[in-house]
Amino acid sequence: MAYQGGYPQPQYGGYGQHPAGAPAGYGGGYGGYAPPPQQPPVNPEIQNIFRNIDKDNTGRINNRELQQALINGRGDHFSDTACNLMISMFDRNKTGTVDIYDFEKLYNYINQWLQVFKNFDRDASGHIEESELTQALTQMGFRFSPQFIQYLIAKNDPINRKEISVDQFIVTCIQIQRFTDAFRVRDTEQKGVITIGFEDFLGIALSMCS
Amino acid sequence: MAYQGGYPQPQYGGYGQHPAGAPAGYGGGYGGYAPPPQQPPVNPEIQNIFRNIDKDNTGRINNRELQQALINGRGDHFSDTACNLMISMFDRNKTGTVDIYDFEKLYNYINQWLQVFKNFDRDASGHIEESELTQALTQMGFRFSPQFIQYLIAKNDPINRKEISVDQFIVTCIQIQRFTDAFRVRDTEQKGVITIGFEDFLGIALSMCS
Repeated sequence: MAYQGGYPQPQYGGYGQHPAGAPAGYGGGYGGYAPPPQQPPVNPEIQNIFRNIDKDNTGRINNRELQQALINGRGDHFSDTACNLMISMFDRNKTGTVDIYDFEKLYNYINQWLQVFKNFDRDASGHIEESELTQALTQMGFRFSPQFIQYLIAKNDPINRKEISVDQFIVTCIQIQRFTDAFRVRDTEQKGVITIGFEDFLGIALSMCS
Repeated sequence: MAYQGGYPQPQYGGYGQHPAGAPAGYGGGYGGYAPPPQQPPVNPEIQNIFRNIDKDNTGRINNRELQQALINGRGDHFSDTACNLMISMFDRNKTGTVDIYDFEKLYNYINQWLQVFKNFDRDASGHIEESELTQALTQMGFRFSPQFIQYLIAKNDPINRKEISVDQFIVTCIQIQRFTDAFRVRDTEQKGVITIGFEDFLGIALSMCS
């Protein structure tokens, strides 16, 4: 497992910072805040993209509309899970939809992830294979066992193609980042081991399951 | 929080047995086994139901077909998550679909859950409210804090109706049961507290996320 990064590697990644290579600013900071009194104008190109995706002209994009707009390297639409997860990050009003202001942030976020994916998809296959996923997670500051990397692929790839698509990659990275954040705040001595009660454990485990 | 069951209550439920009231036999025992050489005949009523659900006549039922057949108390189709979760439990060939033999087990399993739900939906509203969910989980052997029950409802109910539907109830109970099983095997002294490493923690947390 090659060492990619030019910085010290903790046993697991992103202590005190978001993993290198992964888009920052996901999750927190969007939910629950009212927009500023005057929204800055949305880039005209993004306005056009928004109108194309908003098929029913409601002024909001839902999971199905986002799915129709996003295709992975296999020619399949992004998964329900991926679209739900990403919409939920930018859906200020908790309606399961995004307006054009939320969408601008979501659009930029997806593009950041696509760039990350392309950087790690070194053979430009449109998929991430085991060695590429290992490199990606290593560069993000994680040091997982080969067995764990294989588990991550098998979890996303029940028919044993030994590769994951871009939407699966995004979901996997976001879930790992979130669970790592939850683990980190409990691992006060940064030993890579925590002691945790049942209800707290359940709450974390359930928090990312749709 | 009323005590419903006639048996001792551990801090969390189901030690050495599945929680009372919840269907047994989910998950393990179905996956990966070849069918016996001669399948027993499927009940004719279930054959009819299967044919009605299998709209594209492939001889297998997929997530979308199952969703079309299952309506919750709000008149909405069961969620993707619920259908995926239940199909995955009975899908021996890991194709994301069930044949008629898998379906017979799935059908019985869903009906068991519907019966559990009806028993706990004491006001027959078609939904489970906080007090009913508390009673249900208590009777299943769990003793959660009111805050945790409120978290479970809020997680399923982003628009604050303070109730969960039957498909949300089923998913929540299955997820809790599975995470409890994972916790239990690590809580060798049954203290309700475990010490766990990062990769193991991540593996459990990710295992139930689609």
